[in-house]
Amino acid sequence: VLWQQDTGEWMQRLDSDPNLGACALYFADGKRKVDYVLVYHCHRRPSARDSPDQHRLSVISNGSFPLRAAQKGPEEGKAERGEVSVDLGPADPAEGEKRMIREEFEANLKEAGLEMEHGSEHKAHGHTFVRIHAPWQVLSREAEFLKIKVATKKVRHRAPLPSSTLDFIQSVDLGCTFYWLCGLCVHTFLSTLLGITTLIAKGVYESAFPLHDVSCPLLPILHDEWARYGVFYKYQPVDLIRKYFGEKIGLYFAWLGVYTQLLIPASLVGIIVFLYGCATLDTNVPSLEMCDTMQNFTMCPLCDGACDYWELSTACSTARASHLFDNPATVFFAIFMSLWAAMFLEHWKRRQISLNHSWDLTGMEEEETHAVTHHSKLIFGVTFSAVFSVIIYRITVSALMAMSTDGATKANIRVTVTATAVIINLVVILILDEIYGTVAVWLTELEIPKTETNFEERLILKAFLLKFMNAYAPIFYVAFFKGRFAGRPGGYVYVFNDYRMEECAPGGCLIELCIQLSIIMLGKQLIQNNIFEIGIPKLKKLYRTLKDKEQAPSESEEQQGRVRPQWVLDYGLEPFNGLTPEYMEMIIQFGFVSLFVASFPLAPLFALLNNVIEIRLDAKKFVTELRRPDAIRAKDIGIWYNILSGMGKFSVIINAFVISFTSDFIPRLMYQYMYSDTGTMYGFIDHTLSYFNVSNLKPGTAPVVSNYPKEVTFCRYKDYREPPWSPDAYQFSKHYWAILAARLGFVILFQNLVMFMSVLVDWVIPDVPKNISEQQKKEKAMLVDVFLREEKEKLQLIQSLFSKDVSQASSFPSNKRSLQQPPLGHGDHCFPRPRGRAASFSQFSRQESVSPWHETTRHTAV
Amino acid sequence: VLWQQDTGEWMQRLDSDPNLGACALYFADGKRKVDYVLVYHCHRRPSARDSPDQHRLSVISNGSFPLRAAQKGPEEGKAERGEVSVDLGPADPAEGEKRMIREEFEANLKEAGLEMEHGSEHKAHGHTFVRIHAPWQVLSREAEFLKIKVATKKVRHRAPLPSSTLDFIQSVDLGCTFYWLCGLCVHTFLSTLLGITTLIAKGVYESAFPLHDVSCPLLPILHDEWARYGVFYKYQPVDLIRKYFGEKIGLYFAWLGVYTQLLIPASLVGIIVFLYGCATLDTNVPSLEMCDTMQNFTMCPLCDGACDYWELSTACSTARASHLFDNPATVFFAIFMSLWAAMFLEHWKRRQISLNHSWDLTGMEEEETHAVTHHSKLIFGVTFSAVFSVIIYRITVSALMAMSTDGATKANIRVTVTATAVIINLVVILILDEIYGTVAVWLTELEIPKTETNFEERLILKAFLLKFMNAYAPIFYVAFFKGRFAGRPGGYVYVFNDYRMEECAPGGCLIELCIQLSIIMLGKQLIQNNIFEIGIPKLKKLYRTLKDKEQAPSESEEQQGRVRPQWVLDYGLEPFNGLTPEYMEMIIQFGFVSLFVASFPLAPLFALLNNVIEIRLDAKKFVTELRRPDAIRAKDIGIWYNILSGMGKFSVIINAFVISFTSDFIPRLMYQYMYSDTGTMYGFIDHTLSYFNVSNLKPGTAPVVSNYPKEVTFCRYKDYREPPWSPDAYQFSKHYWAILAARLGFVILFQNLVMFMSVLVDWVIPDVPKNISEQQKKEKAMLVDVFLREEKEKLQLIQSLFSKDVSQASSFPSNKRSLQQPPLGHGDHCFPRPRGRAASFSQFSRQESVSPWHETTRHTAV
Repeated sequence: VLWQQDTGEWMQRLDSDPNLGACALYFADGKRKVDYVLVYHCHRRPSARDSPDQHRLSVISNGSFPLRAAQKGPEEGKAERGEVSVDLGPADPAEGEKRMIREEFEANLKEAGLEMEHGSEHKAHGHTFVRIHAPWQVLSREAEFLKIKVATKKVRHRAPLPSSTLDFIQSVDLGCTFYWLCGLCVHTFLSTLLGITTLIAKGVYESAFPLHDVSCPLLPILHDEWARYGVFYKYQPVDLIRKYFGEKIGLYFAWLGVYTQLLIPASLVGIIVFLYGCATLDTNVPSLEMCDTMQNFTMCPLCDGACDYWELSTACSTARASHLFDNPATVFFAIFMSLWAAMFLEHWKRRQISLNHSWDLTGMEEEETHAVTHHSKLIFGVTFSAVFSVIIYRITVSALMAMSTDGATKANIRVTVTATAVIINLVVILILDEIYGTVAVWLTELEIPKTETNFEERLILKAFLLKFMNAYAPIFYVAFFKGRFAGRPGGYVYVFNDYRMEECAPGGCLIELCIQLSIIMLGKQLIQNNIFEIGIPKLKKLYRTLKDKEQAPSESEEQQGRVRPQWVLDYGLEPFNGLTPEYMEMIIQFGFVSLFVASFPLAPLFALLNNVIEIRLDAKKFVTELRRPDAIRAKDIGIWYNILSGMGKFSVIINAFVISFTSDFIPRLMYQYMYSDTGTMYGFIDHTLSYFNVSNLKPGTAPVVSNYPKEVTFCRYKDYREPPWSPDAYQFSKHYWAILAARLGFVILFQNLVMFMSVLVDWVIPDVPKNISEQQKKEKAMLVDVFLREEKEKLQLIQSLFSKDVSQASSFPSNKRSLQQPPLGHGDHCFPRPRGRAASFSQFSRQESVSPWHETTRHTAV
Repeated sequence: VLWQQDTGEWMQRLDSDPNLGACALYFADGKRKVDYVLVYHCHRRPSARDSPDQHRLSVISNGSFPLRAAQKGPEEGKAERGEVSVDLGPADPAEGEKRMIREEFEANLKEAGLEMEHGSEHKAHGHTFVRIHAPWQVLSREAEFLKIKVATKKVRHRAPLPSSTLDFIQSVDLGCTFYWLCGLCVHTFLSTLLGITTLIAKGVYESAFPLHDVSCPLLPILHDEWARYGVFYKYQPVDLIRKYFGEKIGLYFAWLGVYTQLLIPASLVGIIVFLYGCATLDTNVPSLEMCDTMQNFTMCPLCDGACDYWELSTACSTARASHLFDNPATVFFAIFMSLWAAMFLEHWKRRQISLNHSWDLTGMEEEETHAVTHHSKLIFGVTFSAVFSVIIYRITVSALMAMSTDGATKANIRVTVTATAVIINLVVILILDEIYGTVAVWLTELEIPKTETNFEERLILKAFLLKFMNAYAPIFYVAFFKGRFAGRPGGYVYVFNDYRMEECAPGGCLIELCIQLSIIMLGKQLIQNNIFEIGIPKLKKLYRTLKDKEQAPSESEEQQGRVRPQWVLDYGLEPFNGLTPEYMEMIIQFGFVSLFVASFPLAPLFALLNNVIEIRLDAKKFVTELRRPDAIRAKDIGIWYNILSGMGKFSVIINAFVISFTSDFIPRLMYQYMYSDTGTMYGFIDHTLSYFNVSNLKPGTAPVVSNYPKEVTFCRYKDYREPPWSPDAYQFSKHYWAILAARLGFVILFQNLVMFMSVLVDWVIPDVPKNISEQQKKEKAMLVDVFLREEKEKLQLIQSLFSKDVSQASSFPSNKRSLQQPPLGHGDHCFPRPRGRAASFSQFSRQESVSPWHETTRHTAV
């Protein structure tokens, strides 16, 4: 059969003996399937080992005993608990309390109709596994509850309305969806009503998870068609993912798929922009002028005393590299990417609605309303300022760091220096990333949020802000602060008395930004993907395996012949810790793709390459390395959408500033169309360099030893200032102000144009895909038709039976009279004809006549 | 009784004979109430008059006759129709066809269970009134249909769930809500299923409307507590309005109320800003300097040849007036108002959710999905360009107009000239407003929208764009174009060879903008309110009354003794033409309040005063002057919200530009902190005026006859240009560029700051009011409780009855087995115990046992 063609580790074990494998999923009776497992630790000494055959079960039939009696009933269970309390009671005084809580909790579960098998496994070093089975009864009740939630919607969306719970379950069933439903039911039950999360937090239970369903044919399909690098070019089987893992995880992968798919056009355009830069490299006038040794610009020294005058042409390579990323196509690309971000969000909205429709989530209500207290907002303000102080601290530190490495630079080793500095930066980022995660949890706990969803959202928001600042602070520094406040020759700005503020390379700050971006982006992705996501789990596993072997060498030999039960195998996997880290990684990446894309057009390409691997990596993790996550219903990706959308908006203004301030786009444009005599770019470099009279250098700042071949009277520096011979020498020139105005004007134009176009994109792409809206309309029309037809039949029936009474009954003169004549009005309703697909409950009453329960009903109703 | 204390015109008539009045609401049998009226015109000659006593009725009992027979049945009806067709058949060939459509349509109505009285009224000059009564049967069916739509939500929101249709109606009933429901039902029925709108458009019927319900005690309450100027300070009885007029109109008035209420703080702040301007008038250095005759600035002539040199101090009054609106407080006010707009939208969202909750609209689905075809979008693009060409045309024309009136101005008559020009403008606006309405309809019809809602939305959007352009084009012109392209002395810009582009007054363009705004705003409101909304309807009515008297003098005498039936009275009222004009007026006003508020802080005050009147005016109109509108369910104000929100966003950038470019805020700031030697404003006027050497005036442009007392070498003009003695004379100076950069920087800062703060406002104010979200949570928890309790009872019952079978039935090892054992699964559902409030239909089946219809049911079901 299909599910035997698997490649997964634990499935291989099962393959050796399929019967045993299948058996390991069930209660001791071999019939009732284990839907959910609760684990707690007994702190038993390894010496108190049981023989492998002695399964001490406490199968409790459902509620037929009084509750207290039921707890005392199964002898083994009692004995075991007794043993535990005697053994550890004094050593850990809380243990007794925990045991009581467990007993009460499990009693509640029994009361709710769940069945439990209660046994310890010798292999688990004192872990007790409570296996839970949700019988048909409980399941149908939960399903009915679910059905009520989606009932009205169902009427509209499903052509044949499932009239009973059975039908409902069948309608969503495909082999193992049923078990998914089980898991969902049990989880909903445990979490909503009984607070398993709290119990785990308190340490009453160690963990709670549903079992990987080895008997489900979905699993090998997922394994072959999804969790393999070989299928990277294929669409993900999102419907199957949802069936096995639930909607929340299904939505994550669907989202990742949409994002990755949309990265393809962005990468293509990015590559074209980059190629355009390469192609125009040799015809680009400014970089040609910079490399032209004939032009002979003598530049002012880059530091005090130690540095000499230098020729601009030595910075030729930087200038050429700069052009690759800083060319007119970049502006187009920035606009394109802003619209791309808007398009991506719209596209995802549509996909989400499609999925909601096909997964029948339309009627689902949000479980939590996101009411937020003012108190917590205040504290959030504090968090926010904390974040800002972090960014300021970071900027200061990196400025200081950059300065100290800047000792006696030459222009051509500048890039190397920048790169090493950035790598140090990257390491700091990766370390801080972990620290910030903890800080976010701590900050959120301070706020004491009211609900779990609420807690999760705030945690995400805080963690995001901290990690965002961490990843982007150095980039922001290079893009907008570096070199802006350096002053001018003879009037440099000094910090801490001695250090001159750092300047950008003569090719512009954009190339440094570009290096910074590519290293952080690539480095973060490679290191986090390879080391944190692949390496560390493998090491952990290795360590665990070694430890297991060491601790129980005899057992493992003993075990070799037989298969361990599924719950022990699953317990050995990594627990699932939520989707937050996965989303976070992707969102930070989305920031690289959208925020600074103007300075690094290859970012989408790198993101695409990363994501193609990431999808399969995550898939493998979910299928083979993690315990099965609880199937959680969700109709959207929650706060992540807001973060994405906020980031998209933020990216517009950032890109506007990068283009107008970090790149030389505006000065070049201004030169070509306003200042150049020829209307060409020739003379641009000369135009951007101001003159400085070296006699104006402050004492002690002139080069101590000058090896410069020429006598220097005037040196040049990159700024728009009045020349020394002007009445207000070294003041900002008219060109400076005009170019500043142009830069600012461009920001306004760019921002508003892109915002307008985004609104247009939002408006042109309808939220609800056309086929779905048409389907909904059709289904609605059908409903109205059926309803009217049945009403008409009913009417005709009444008329044919009581044709005389009708004229009297339907004359209905005033409101008062209607209230005085209830029987007439009532008569209409006491006529339980089938009300079409809309009236599922009325069909129940029809079934009475054929139901074996009919007599009972009469008895209890009367 | 309460409803007799009325003041309305038609209610007074009823007062004279309450019995007759009451009778006039009913069918001829005096029992069945008229819920809805269809009117068609028979084109009969007045000669063919009937005696007043001869009511030719065609009361058709419901469906007991075969349909064809029913139509031929009533002799008078047939005779009448015969008479008509003979009389006018040849003159109007379409009349026969219309009659056939009517017959078929009415047959459909009968088939659907509605009852009709078919008679012509002598008073109506050939109008035939088809009176429709919705019998209890039809009503309950419709209510059930409605209930199905809201059922699941109801479960959550209403503590006692109405278990039957009767309960449902009672739960929403308060005296006449029942009739509101009737109207709603009949209207929904007519429009959705039978397309009455199309029939009216085709002329088959003249009109269709529900009757004003004189017997309803709500009406006099509305009259006294709402439609009176005396209660202007009170909250509107929104719940009662909704009960009588339906949700759509209720929402309009609720919205108007929220808007008006929020205008109060805006007005207060506006007044404070204005008072601040008044208080600082005498200490304001720039206006003092302008009025100081000792300063003696000789200004360049304002036109060629005819104009003389002039002293700046003659423009003193303008400068002083300017300060009232152009002072530092204005900047604060602009930010305040942008946030106010965001706040208003958020506030309305909350109110809307509250209303949805208390009006039980939460579960309501939108009837139409707004699928938009690409085809129509293209055409919309054409519309958009048409609008733009309109604005360009308008600007050109007003520029030309302004120029021609500008002949030989002196500075102090400038204001008068501006004012008169604006008044002419206003008249043009009012006339174009009407034309544009028609154009919008025409454009929308071109697009062939698919649905009615769709049509309405597109119509609104187009009409809005056109009217917006119409109202704001001259304001935009003054704010951003006037005087910007005028050139400089010796280098003026000429259009059409002869006309110099208009300049702003020396006090700045802001004062002109202010005059423009106040006149257009006040004028539009006063004229549209008083003449169009009060005057014209009164005139129309007068005309109709006169015409009636003239045409039928004998009848009116005859009639004086008796009351005309309600449907004839209602037919005499103005038809209700939708809320679009009401909303449109308010939205355009909202534009005045938000868009240019930086230049006119009193705008909110004027808007507030207008709205206090407007609410009561509209109320009076709805209660006494209009036919009763169809009660239409709506859960929001539709596209108007989008327009409001778009306007709010647009206002941010407009205000940013008004402050930085139209006002002198930035130059003043720059002067004080950058250019002034003393750090004060002294010398600001001198700084803003450039020098011009009169010898550089082009030949023929110097004053022909100069009466100026002094010899003039240099005249001054308002601009930042290099003086004549500079190497690049008359070029823009460094100050110009620096100030331009500052202006643009301010725009970016303002826009992004306000946008960020708006997002914050959006985030801080939760959409769902706290009390409602808590209520919802509580109700949900209650539902879960009840559900679980009942499930538990059910479970115990099963267990107690079949304790032996349970363990077998509930052991449910595999999916396949469940499918093989349907009876077991089914057993659960064939057990129609009450399913709590959720299960309204199951309660129907319970009622069987006490219902007199019970036996019948059994018969038919088996």
